[in-house]
Amino acid sequence: MSGVIVTHPPKADAKDVETLAGFGVATVSEAMGRTGLIGPGVRPIQQGVRVVGTAVTVLSWPGDNLMIHAAVEQCGEGDILVVTTTSPSTDGMFGELFATALQQRGVRGLIINAGIRDTQELRDMSFPAWSRAVCAQGTVKATGGSVNVPVAVDGQVIRPGDVILADDDGVVVVPRERARATAEASEAREAKEARSRAAFLDGELGLDRYGLRETLKRLGVEYKTYEEYSSDAGERP
Amino acid sequence: MSGVIVTHPPKADAKDVETLAGFGVATVSEAMGRTGLIGPGVRPIQQGVRVVGTAVTVLSWPGDNLMIHAAVEQCGEGDILVVTTTSPSTDGMFGELFATALQQRGVRGLIINAGIRDTQELRDMSFPAWSRAVCAQGTVKATGGSVNVPVAVDGQVIRPGDVILADDDGVVVVPRERARATAEASEAREAKEARSRAAFLDGELGLDRYGLRETLKRLGVEYKTYEEYSSDAGERP
Amino acid sequence: MSGVIVTHPPKADAKDVETLAGFGVATVSEAMGRTGLIGPGVRPIQQGVRVVGTAVTVLSWPGDNLMIHAAVEQCGEGDILVVTTTSPSTDGMFGELFATALQQRGVRGLIINAGIRDTQELRDMSFPAWSRAVCAQGTVKATGGSVNVPVAVDGQVIRPGDVILADDDGVVVVPRERARATAEASEAREAKEARSRAAFLDGELGLDRYGLRETLKRLGVEYKTYEEYSSDAGERP
Amino acid sequence: MSGVIVTHPPKADAKDVETLAGFGVATVSEAMGRTGLIGPGVRPIQQGVRVVGTAVTVLSWPGDNLMIHAAVEQCGEGDILVVTTTSPSTDGMFGELFATALQQRGVRGLIINAGIRDTQELRDMSFPAWSRAVCAQGTVKATGGSVNVPVAVDGQVIRPGDVILADDDGVVVVPRERARATAEASEAREAKEARSRAAFLDGELGLDRYGLRETLKRLGVEYKTYEEYSSDAGERP
Amino acid sequence: MSGVIVTHPPKADAKDVETLAGFGVATVSEAMGRTGLIGPGVRPIQQGVRVVGTAVTVLSWPGDNLMIHAAVEQCGEGDILVVTTTSPSTDGMFGELFATALQQRGVRGLIINAGIRDTQELRDMSFPAWSRAVCAQGTVKATGGSVNVPVAVDGQVIRPGDVILADDDGVVVVPRERARATAEASEAREAKEARSRAAFLDGELGLDRYGLRETLKRLGVEYKTYEEYSSDAGERP
Amino acid sequence: MSGVIVTHPPKADAKDVETLAGFGVATVSEAMGRTGLIGPGVRPIQQGVRVVGTAVTVLSWPGDNLMIHAAVEQCGEGDILVVTTTSPSTDGMFGELFATALQQRGVRGLIINAGIRDTQELRDMSFPAWSRAVCAQGTVKATGGSVNVPVAVDGQVIRPGDVILADDDGVVVVPRERARATAEASEAREAKEARSRAAFLDGELGLDRYGLRETLKRLGVEYKTYEEYSSDAGERP
Repeated sequence: MSGVIVTHPPKADAKDVETLAGFGVATVSEAMGRTGLIGPGVRPIQQGVRVVGTAVTVLSWPGDNLMIHAAVEQCGEGDILVVTTTSPSTDGMFGELFATALQQRGVRGLIINAGIRDTQELRDMSFPAWSRAVCAQGTVKATGGSVNVPVAVDGQVIRPGDVILADDDGVVVVPRERARATAEASEAREAKEARSRAAFLDGELGLDRYGLRETLKRLGVEYKTYEEYSSDAGERP
Repeated sequence: MSGVIVTHPPKADAKDVETLAGFGVATVSEAMGRTGLIGPGVRPIQQGVRVVGTAVTVLSWPGDNLMIHAAVEQCGEGDILVVTTTSPSTDGMFGELFATALQQRGVRGLIINAGIRDTQELRDMSFPAWSRAVCAQGTVKATGGSVNVPVAVDGQVIRPGDVILADDDGVVVVPRERARATAEASEAREAKEARSRAAFLDGELGLDRYGLRETLKRLGVEYKTYEEYSSDAGERP
Repeated sequence: MSGVIVTHPPKADAKDVETLAGFGVATVSEAMGRTGLIGPGVRPIQQGVRVVGTAVTVLSWPGDNLMIHAAVEQCGEGDILVVTTTSPSTDGMFGELFATALQQRGVRGLIINAGIRDTQELRDMSFPAWSRAVCAQGTVKATGGSVNVPVAVDGQVIRPGDVILADDDGVVVVPRERARATAEASEAREAKEARSRAAFLDGELGLDRYGLRETLKRLGVEYKTYEEYSSDAGERP
Repeated sequence: MSGVIVTHPPKADAKDVETLAGFGVATVSEAMGRTGLIGPGVRPIQQGVRVVGTAVTVLSWPGDNLMIHAAVEQCGEGDILVVTTTSPSTDGMFGELFATALQQRGVRGLIINAGIRDTQELRDMSFPAWSRAVCAQGTVKATGGSVNVPVAVDGQVIRPGDVILADDDGVVVVPRERARATAEASEAREAKEARSRAAFLDGELGLDRYGLRETLKRLGVEYKTYEEYSSDAGERP
Repeated sequence: MSGVIVTHPPKADAKDVETLAGFGVATVSEAMGRTGLIGPGVRPIQQGVRVVGTAVTVLSWPGDNLMIHAAVEQCGEGDILVVTTTSPSTDGMFGELFATALQQRGVRGLIINAGIRDTQELRDMSFPAWSRAVCAQGTVKATGGSVNVPVAVDGQVIRPGDVILADDDGVVVVPRERARATAEASEAREAKEARSRAAFLDGELGLDRYGLRETLKRLGVEYKTYEEYSSDAGERP
Repeated sequence: MSGVIVTHPPKADAKDVETLAGFGVATVSEAMGRTGLIGPGVRPIQQGVRVVGTAVTVLSWPGDNLMIHAAVEQCGEGDILVVTTTSPSTDGMFGELFATALQQRGVRGLIINAGIRDTQELRDMSFPAWSRAVCAQGTVKATGGSVNVPVAVDGQVIRPGDVILADDDGVVVVPRERARATAEASEAREAKEARSRAAFLDGELGLDRYGLRETLKRLGVEYKTYEEYSSDAGERP
């Protein structure tokens, strides 16, 4: 299943991708039933940037960036490069030269489940990136891997052509077939959140708005004054 | 000991709280005999912000933010919300909607021993937060927990009404009964540090200022030239 | 091998040190054959700063900063203080008072394989630092250690007088005898990278520029259309 | 709050302690409403041993075992020594000599939120121990701390005289005032589990026994055949 | 994609499964081109046991074992239960009662990407298990999840009916369609290893057997005497 | 400094090596002034085994075991193989075939700062090993490295010919020039410990034996009854 460079995979519809660009990572994940998130170990190297695009995936050997070179050729306008390794690695597989080549081809950013380097240069050239580590350790070009095969990162499967959305909160992947439905659900969620926001600014409580007083009661959570609690707890206030 | 929402706990004196606002986390911890610190895993999501207030505590089930809703009602002017979970969790239990509700009530910030999301929105609305993780993973409202009971984070016990002080260096908790004494000790320490700073700018050495040459001698630490050391160490300079 | 303060160690040639200031950490590590790097756990407390200097090394007991006081006296113009502990520690061994004393002596920055505190103050006074943790936990002055002995951090040996170069990507150490050769190799590498950058901006591919199509073929990496791959993979596209 | 050796703290009733010896850590924690557990980072150095006793607590400086010496004198028949440090540490603060002294005094075991050494010797002499790390690194006796003050480990507060129960699953602390009630609740739970065990051996399902089919329905969890699911999931079975 | 219990998924051919039982995890992973492995964080709770079976998969909410109850009903002769959570969790979701129910149904073991408890009881009843943590922390039954959907653990996708093989080295998953081919490749590999073993016992070197002297030469690795090396390295032998 | 296979390095005197075999890792580290230890992350795969020998060192690329093949040829009677990687790696670089080849040459064991596999087979053939991870992930033979150069693991430098001593507590390295002095110091320490053991069995306290009551007094540690302490601590007993 390794050692393959897959060309011309299907991609999410471009219009759906752009619609998803209007939402944050948290909103889109909620809209998919709280799924799709890469875990908190993959962090942005910049602040205040949101990016959306279609995945070109890379599966590399640790300490080896040969397959990123192969992937550059498969990348085009609107793509986001997604790189992972067959074993955990923090090596700096990606730097400013790769970003230059990708930016020239219209690629919008990088998600890498490994290390990155030249971080200041990447910020200077406005090439956004999310990585597991920042590390200057260089890599070799000696062992094969794959491009545009499904990869799994942190319990999340990413296929080529899936939508990648990333911001300060992390990275979410939307399966390409679900891009439209997710965009619609995100819109609905955002509208609902806007109403909640207005209510909260008005002083309404979530307890009332979401009917949670009932939940607390059902679960047996009790209200006690500090004095009642202290006397229950004996010498353990 | 779980499943309780405690109302109207005692709080540290407001004037003492404000006095503590004048010091950094490191100073206050030193003033308490090097105690009171949450460990280095809880980090700010913003830079250059210091906040002080009285704790409203929450003990939640992992992956569940029901009790934060319950806690909002218990929060008021000058409070800081302190959230922890019964098991380690990185889920994003807290986001911009909660911050909106809390800010509306005069709450000054959040300390969360778990995940947070909507980080850019929180920075934009100037709601300061310290968290163990940044993660967009949403949560449910299905399992009970407690509000305003003592909680322990990183070897530190935090009770409702205790003073929370947080800045770029981390978070310190001052027991409510010790707020005044700690404020006074912090002042004394800062004065002493000002004198040391002036001395160091003048070129005085800590070795001399703190009488440490004697300590080094007592401990048997020797001075050697590089040549002496190299010859002692054989081929291991 | 412990309990020694070594005076007047040899240092890398000052002119070579300044030449190395012209390169990034990644370039210099590559120029040394991909060696010399401290791992990704040691991170800068500021952004966009590069610093170069000669190492004054400290080996301290965990939770104890006595030997940093001893080291201040050994530091001078153009040095960088490098601190590690005999056991892993996140305690905030170093803060603004030490930085004041060091800056007064012409020291250019700090690399600490432990904790640091007063981070906002350090940024305000432009004293750059790289640390394993940010933590306000204070330390004692009770146990001996060494200054200017070789120390090992993350598989990297650092001797007094070696060149330390640090930027947003991390920290690299250049053995003092190799400073000149490394500066020259860094220059050569940067020139080569400039040519690659120009080529990539022109749309050339790394696959062609570095002859990697041949490598892929030798390793048996195959190109397949998405349809071919899907049919091979059965129901696992 | 540090620098104190507290003598003659109250202890849980000896008879209750012995009753608790009849249950496993999981049972006792369940009986306390799923509370009281030290996290999974503290592991036994032996297999198949369960121990119960009353806590003598130690709060030490990292890399320093002075206060363990002070604690030995406070230990007696039926106690378990509980050691933690003011900062995280893996140093081997405890070994066979301490175990010899404690065993001579009737102490039943050790819980240490730090490192341990002489592990084979401890197994040979049947002195059970649970530790965060196994590490031969020795320590000094240079900095003060406390004995028999409340300490917090992994979100759990342990006071002197509280009951400590440890087995292959980890460590649970029972507040001394709750020892009897917890023993009774543990008995009830064990009886209930015995009935469930018998039912499961008979082929009954938890779904039916605990009424969970209703829960699944209420939560909207649906049953689908593989064919239905595959067709819903499109190309993502 | 969540909230589904899938019934009657296809399974790997039983005869192929039994053939795979003859090989170790390392051999089978090599036979699949070095793929299929769960990472080193999932460890056995027993020593010297190898188990093989077909996966029944569970995707649970953290701190919640409701879906394991649902999964028991889907389990039968020759299955292995594979449990993961939507967020990282160390809670002890599985213990002796579940093992009793599963053993009664002919299930051969458990792979859990979370915590386990009752470990001594599991060993006593010879129910083998591999887990990410050992932790007595109990769980609730309050939030939905899925059974027999594909799950991803450590970059590895596991579908219901795939073959799970686990031993002291860890866990490997063989896609159900590849069970036969993998069994054959494993046999071939084992035969080859037997020949190598014999050769090594005879004193042959891998360098010669695998033609690696040529590789070393091509890569520019040089042989030097200690004296040559020391003189090259200057004072850094 | 990489890409070299150094032949015939000097070795510690064989008689000194055998003398060191009589002591545990903790004793020998103490005898060297509490130095020389690899950290607690490198653990034995067996229990109750102590091994001593002279180091043959390997520095490998992550995911690549080519240089272990090169190292086998450099290994002989009484050696211990010490392997580390240029970047952190958990891959199973070493297994039963290597152990067979090494055992045939008289090698006594393995220390590997990476992953190991075939652990049950290694135990069965009595080839002792200490590793950072157990992982079946296989490796390639594609990138160069070095044999018998100094390597650093966890702040510890290991040179070829240095003495390696490993037991259940971990691994210590004794510089080859210090083998005799360390053996003598270990003997002295063991004699001293025997006297302490006898005293402790007699009921003497470390406080008295080591004069620590004086230390406690000097550090200001106070004795208080539980009542005094509770009244000082206010409501925080």
